[in-house]
Amino acid sequence: MSGTEPAPSASWFLQAAEQFQVGFEPNALSASPVRHIVVVTCMDARLDLFRLLGLQIGDAHILRNAGGRVTDDVIRSLVLSSHALGTREVVVIHHTGCGLLGATNERLRSKVRDATGHCADHIDFLPIHDVKESVCHDVAAVQRCELLPCDMVAWGCVYDVTDGSLTRVV
Amino acid sequence: MSGTEPAPSASWFLQAAEQFQVGFEPNALSASPVRHIVVVTCMDARLDLFRLLGLQIGDAHILRNAGGRVTDDVIRSLVLSSHALGTREVVVIHHTGCGLLGATNERLRSKVRDATGHCADHIDFLPIHDVKESVCHDVAAVQRCELLPCDMVAWGCVYDVTDGSLTRVV
Repeated sequence: MSGTEPAPSASWFLQAAEQFQVGFEPNALSASPVRHIVVVTCMDARLDLFRLLGLQIGDAHILRNAGGRVTDDVIRSLVLSSHALGTREVVVIHHTGCGLLGATNERLRSKVRDATGHCADHIDFLPIHDVKESVCHDVAAVQRCELLPCDMVAWGCVYDVTDGSLTRVV
Repeated sequence: MSGTEPAPSASWFLQAAEQFQVGFEPNALSASPVRHIVVVTCMDARLDLFRLLGLQIGDAHILRNAGGRVTDDVIRSLVLSSHALGTREVVVIHHTGCGLLGATNERLRSKVRDATGHCADHIDFLPIHDVKESVCHDVAAVQRCELLPCDMVAWGCVYDVTDGSLTRVV
């Protein structure tokens, strides 16, 4: 990418943030989440965690990537979150209609090669075949991570984007 | 960690989600963000992106990790977001008071070793020394990534948790 194009959303975001600042109330919140919890979920645009889970500012760390998968980067973040900032509970939320559901590394790599001329064969996109299975897989990855505190708890849910329901699966 | 303890927040989250579902309005939104934008930011509990940026459900992909750093996992997500789901703009937002600001790998690794008995020396926690510099560094990492579309745009901001202001720095 060149990075020389204008940024279409810059003025929109900065204007929204000015409005936000007008109503901002100073607080004594630190970097440690009040409820000692971390949510791991997908980047999907249809997920507003604060509204879905009834979160308030300061309640929880939120980790989001493609799929809500427990990657090395999520482990880096969870280790920091728990040992340095006091969290002790992890909830993994995957969702119906995910862009990774039914995807394959082969098709995604081919798409990148066709569009850019560059090889993405070193990337495992972590496709999802069954959303309940992927939640269980990723909760297990948190549970067996020896770098997290021994009293860390992990559980997992599936969010249905079609009806707004959240169902615990593990 | 053992994973056998109860999950303190499960009933709270599931009750909140039941309330959310009552007010849920079905929509025709797909996995492709309406505004073709991706926000990369920190897991910090004081950041509610929807309120800060005036986002609506469906507008933007949101990637969050410790620091809002552009890691391999963020690149995986950006490649998927752009080539498979049509985004063409990335905004990186770091913030004042970040848990990674002034941290060092040495101290963090020592803390993990003392607490768990296990070695985290393979983890680069990606400490931040200057929050404007880290935004510029990570926007540049997006801009030079050859796996992203050639018309992808990236820019970056600093959010101040003490006064709610958002300032573009690149």
